[in-house]
Amino acid sequence: SAGGQENYFSREFLNRMSEKRTDSQWLEAKQSSPASVYILFFNLNPFVTPTAGETSESRAPFGLCRLRWESVEALVKQPGTTLVFLGVEKQVKLVPPSPEGGKDGLTAWFALNTDSIPVKELELSYPNSVFLKPPMPQLLRLNPNEAGVIAQARSVLAWHDRYSFCPTCGSRTKVCEGGYKRTCLNEDCRSLQGIQNTCYPRVDPVVIMLVIHPDGNQCLLGRKKTFPAGMFSCLAGFVEAGESMEDAVRREVEEESGVKVGPVQYVSSQPWPMPSSLMIGCLAVAVSTHIKVDEDEIEEARWFTRQQVIDVFTKNSQPVFTIPPRQAIAHQLIKYWIGVNANL
Amino acid sequence: SAGGQENYFSREFLNRMSEKRTDSQWLEAKQSSPASVYILFFNLNPFVTPTAGETSESRAPFGLCRLRWESVEALVKQPGTTLVFLGVEKQVKLVPPSPEGGKDGLTAWFALNTDSIPVKELELSYPNSVFLKPPMPQLLRLNPNEAGVIAQARSVLAWHDRYSFCPTCGSRTKVCEGGYKRTCLNEDCRSLQGIQNTCYPRVDPVVIMLVIHPDGNQCLLGRKKTFPAGMFSCLAGFVEAGESMEDAVRREVEEESGVKVGPVQYVSSQPWPMPSSLMIGCLAVAVSTHIKVDEDEIEEARWFTRQQVIDVFTKNSQPVFTIPPRQAIAHQLIKYWIGVNANL
Ligand SMILES: Nc1ncnc2c1ncn2[C@@H]1O[C@H](COP(=O)(O)O)[C@@H](O)[C@H]1O
Ligand SMILES: Nc1ncnc2c1ncn2[C@@H]1O[C@H](COP(=O)(O)O)[C@@H](O)[C@H]1O
Ligand SMILES: [Mg+2]
Ligand SMILES: [Mg+2]
Ligand SMILES: [Mg+2]
Ligand SMILES: [Mg+2]
Ligand SMILES: [Mg+2]
Ligand SMILES: [Mg+2]
Ligand SMILES: [Zn+2]
Ligand SMILES: [Zn+2]
Repeated sequence: SAGGQENYFSREFLNRMSEKRTDSQWLEAKQSSPASVYILFFNLNPFVTPTAGETSESRAPFGLCRLRWESVEALVKQPGTTLVFLGVEKQVKLVPPSPEGGKDGLTAWFALNTDSIPVKELELSYPNSVFLKPPMPQLLRLNPNEAGVIAQARSVLAWHDRYSFCPTCGSRTKVCEGGYKRTCLNEDCRSLQGIQNTCYPRVDPVVIMLVIHPDGNQCLLGRKKTFPAGMFSCLAGFVEAGESMEDAVRREVEEESGVKVGPVQYVSSQPWPMPSSLMIGCLAVAVSTHIKVDEDEIEEARWFTRQQVIDVFTKNSQPVFTIPPRQAIAHQLIKYWIGVNANL
Repeated sequence: SAGGQENYFSREFLNRMSEKRTDSQWLEAKQSSPASVYILFFNLNPFVTPTAGETSESRAPFGLCRLRWESVEALVKQPGTTLVFLGVEKQVKLVPPSPEGGKDGLTAWFALNTDSIPVKELELSYPNSVFLKPPMPQLLRLNPNEAGVIAQARSVLAWHDRYSFCPTCGSRTKVCEGGYKRTCLNEDCRSLQGIQNTCYPRVDPVVIMLVIHPDGNQCLLGRKKTFPAGMFSCLAGFVEAGESMEDAVRREVEEESGVKVGPVQYVSSQPWPMPSSLMIGCLAVAVSTHIKVDEDEIEEARWFTRQQVIDVFTKNSQPVFTIPPRQAIAHQLIKYWIGVNANL
């Protein structure tokens, strides 16, 4: 990314191998292969285990429980379970290829979501493991190596959870292509004609922006009522239909704060699996300074000086406010702005 | 945009005024105001009129037919019609504000889509006007000032056309918030709990990228079977759930061409209303050069030299291939690359 930073939820250690989604023979062989890895969700909450943290504090990261076919076979066959093929590990093991499948050296990963889990059984087999909930801020406590897999799995599973009927005709749909498509069961449905998006997982682009004061030395941050006391963050909003990223930045900033924006510079992006956003991080240069907040969305918005923001990072003096944790792209955007000139 | 170019479909002359979407009194007053403008679609094809082109050629741009309440009143009340509030003209007319609404000096725009139009009547009242179809390449022949409004209107109307049932429970939905939301009519539906995306128009982020050879002097272009003979374009693909923009670029390029990509640089974005994509234009630097195309999607992919690409723009010599028209972001990306070093 232009920001040079790697955002949380962005590290990929799987190759999605989308060409295998339509290869049902390969998928079936991998599904029941003892080498394959299953990760598990109960109502979209991942099954994780506390890791012996490098840090001894209570905030040690959680690791994914990697289950095997024998532990999940019964669950896969239950009606309330959704199965998604995630990909294969990029690191290929040195095993000679074989025509039977399952023995090509590729370790396949699958995700399962269930609404009726045999919790007792699982808890017995995996002591200390838990279903992480509620999603926030718990999902920010994952091992960063695994956060990207959770982002992929949770987004697709959340889509299945809310999109099991055909929006074009209201009929039931069936899952296909390894969990990356849902097809309407009504043969006459218009959704089966032409290429359309009703069958594919939804991804919602959201712009999130740090607005810089015309003087170059202040930035605009806002807070929602639901934020922890004292916390301020970047403004953000959904990109609307028929709008460029840059125009979405200008519109959302003006809607939420009354401030008008000129130039916009893209910095980096981050998937955000609550349920399935693509956060598009930008710097935006204000061309007006008067603040008038949209009170439905924002409780307060304020210009903060560069020094006040530096204090938040360096903790030299008592900071006057806090910002979201480093896992949030808002944090990275603010840090990027400070770093551009200050070499922090 | 970083590219410094304004992309077709991106020019905005309306202020969306999203805060008015929930103000039904204001919306109703504007709807029947004689000053309001209606644009009309028949099965998602806009009603347009040929403009006396500056150029005398047969490719003169089409202008939107701007209808008034009296022409569309009957149509609005028909069951097969969808109405969307688009916004107000940014240029405010100097009319004194009034409490009645409709007289605040703001000219509101609405879009209508119908599946059963009184075509005869309209054709009589608006001679020479036509419903532009099929969408491509006809939608690229609009007056650039109006293309952005068409993009907004067509995307939202296409969403209504395919999303009239609740994907969570299969019930019917009702249109609200000036056409920017659909709410499930089943009171017990889970889609009404929590903030979720089922109720809002869909926007599909797509990465489109010009891949640069490691030597810096060639670029990778591909062609689909459906392209006109000799035409090549940038590779492109849908951003998937749980993926950053940059990873989507790397994955799609490798899937479609077998070429591996390192650094990715965002250039500019463009809404693409077929039906509702957000095109995210990037330059991508290849770290491998061997081409192996995905034959399901791409017929051929090739490295073209900088000189071959310059020939396409300058038409100095007989170009060996063609590229999409200037209205496509692919064209602008290619032009941007050529311009970066060559000052074309
Ligand atoms: N795809 C979407 N998912 C969730 N909420 C949306 C979506 N699109 C628009 N909204 C609305 O946008 C509001 C959040 O505002 P913002 O994030 O500033 O655009 C939500 O409360 C919803 O009313
Ligand atoms: N939102 C979407 N709308 C349409 N097609 C999609 C979507 N998401 C994935 N696809 C699939 O992606 C194919 C096009 O490939 P690409 O544009 O390279 O990602 C289509 O033929 C569909 O099978
Ligand atoms: Mg917002
Ligand atoms: Mg918004
Ligand atoms: Mg907003
Ligand atoms: Mg493609
Ligand atoms: Mg794709
Ligand atoms: Mg593709
Ligand atoms: Zn259907
Ligand atoms: Zn419903």
